[in-house]
Amino acid sequence: MIKNNFSKYIDVLQGEITSALEKVDGLGKFKKDVWSREKGGGGLTMVIENGKVFEKGGVNVSKVHGKLPKSMAEMFKTKDSDFYACGISIVLHPKNPMAPTFHANLRYFELYENGGLKDRWFGGGLDLTPYYIFENDIIHFHTKCKIVCDKYNSSFYKNYKKRCDEYFWNSHRNEARGVGGLFFDYCRESKEMSIDRWLLFIKDMGQCILDSYIPIVEKRKKTDFNNININWQQIRRGRYVEFNLLHDKGTLFGLKTKGRIESILISMPPKVKWNYDFKTKKGSPEEKLIKILESPKNWV
Amino acid sequence: MIKNNFSKYIDVLQGEITSALEKVDGLGKFKKDVWSREKGGGGLTMVIENGKVFEKGGVNVSKVHGKLPKSMAEMFKTKDSDFYACGISIVLHPKNPMAPTFHANLRYFELYENGGLKDRWFGGGLDLTPYYIFENDIIHFHTKCKIVCDKYNSSFYKNYKKRCDEYFWNSHRNEARGVGGLFFDYCRESKEMSIDRWLLFIKDMGQCILDSYIPIVEKRKKTDFNNININWQQIRRGRYVEFNLLHDKGTLFGLKTKGRIESILISMPPKVKWNYDFKTKKGSPEEKLIKILESPKNWV
Repeated sequence: MIKNNFSKYIDVLQGEITSALEKVDGLGKFKKDVWSREKGGGGLTMVIENGKVFEKGGVNVSKVHGKLPKSMAEMFKTKDSDFYACGISIVLHPKNPMAPTFHANLRYFELYENGGLKDRWFGGGLDLTPYYIFENDIIHFHTKCKIVCDKYNSSFYKNYKKRCDEYFWNSHRNEARGVGGLFFDYCRESKEMSIDRWLLFIKDMGQCILDSYIPIVEKRKKTDFNNININWQQIRRGRYVEFNLLHDKGTLFGLKTKGRIESILISMPPKVKWNYDFKTKKGSPEEKLIKILESPKNWV
Repeated sequence: MIKNNFSKYIDVLQGEITSALEKVDGLGKFKKDVWSREKGGGGLTMVIENGKVFEKGGVNVSKVHGKLPKSMAEMFKTKDSDFYACGISIVLHPKNPMAPTFHANLRYFELYENGGLKDRWFGGGLDLTPYYIFENDIIHFHTKCKIVCDKYNSSFYKNYKKRCDEYFWNSHRNEARGVGGLFFDYCRESKEMSIDRWLLFIKDMGQCILDSYIPIVEKRKKTDFNNININWQQIRRGRYVEFNLLHDKGTLFGLKTKGRIESILISMPPKVKWNYDFKTKKGSPEEKLIKILESPKNWV
């Protein structure tokens, strides 16, 4: 059964990811926070704070079910439906401004009408938000994403990369949140892709979370930085907050449907600054980042 | 003419407020930033950063006009209309966590159809967001608000205080942003209140901005504080960000209608923290604040 298979898989993946991250950190440990949802289900939120490498990070598994909330029923053009949803989501804010912030999630959704399965699909993605541009890091990240995509369909990488750029767009600033990655949703059974094959794709993505990000943070955790870099990191984190609170459908949906606040807003960076009308210097590495965010480019 | 009268008044008030705040600060000076709006009008944003008392603050006057944006036309059930809007808005984030954050705005709106004046009204308000509760400060603030209201109508204070509590409600946290103040809108000519009398009311509110807040910040800028207090202030400022980006109609409308980003987001606090699931200690002054925010009380 796809549902049970994926549900067990994300528990294992949560353990693997948190172990791998603790190794990278060398000092910080994840704390476990078990929670339950009044209307059905619950989750396990794992949080690291004030580590040596990770200033703040969350690896959250949630498995919820029950009556489909009204706003979702409207979206899916159904009524009196039940749902089951489970997923894993990861947000990591490293201390070193040379190391990028990382976000990923993998999720599965089932919709029931009159007690029977009506629809089901996978969704998810992963993306990188650097403060300073190390082109080889970004190429590595996108290459890892592309390799997994290409294994399943030669059009996946191009499509999912594009959707990622479109989704993580801070429209009020006319710039991308970061340098992208992949974004996919409504991955349903089709002639080309059985639901079992989607499950394999999603599991490969789970491995890709580790393969794409860990080598980057391993390298960048050792890169020198100064107070100017920290200041810039905290200003840019403000843009991350703006995206998540103004535009991120997941965050807004979670808050509207009375999801668990602390697990939703675990994505908020630990220390953030808003300076009035901050300008980057001509020819600076800070300006280089902005130029790349203003017009997303192809990395592989 | 009401429009010209109020338009000139907010320029004068901007000068008075910034002078008064510079005196309170003793070190920081406001910088002027003149801007113009592509589709008509512009403004003068005055910003103070890294002062002795004010870590960040903005006093912004804007005067804009043109075709009514589509979203507003729908709201006001009109089409092919023109508008004129002007106002002053103030947000102050003091350095000392014992001094509250302050917000106020006064605004005037005119709507035209077929070249003729169709509707016009005043709006605005002022409110206080403390990090620590000094009851006498809050009573002073609300008393100053009530005195102005009572001069015009004995029901104003009660109504506008209630609307303030309702408006500045962080629904996803089930708590108020701060300890309230006044919120009024669509203040139109009526039997009881001519538009000239509304103008007098608004000007008294302008004076009230100075009378209500300045004495509080004068007192609290000298109050001792420690790192625990700063930490708490920065965590609470996170709630301020959450309100402004998730719920504040003015901010969201400004961003949607492509207003000037830096003048809109000048309200963002300078330094902010998000810790995972921060808990206050039983019997602590931090817990006292939360309890008050969870069920807004009457202060006068």
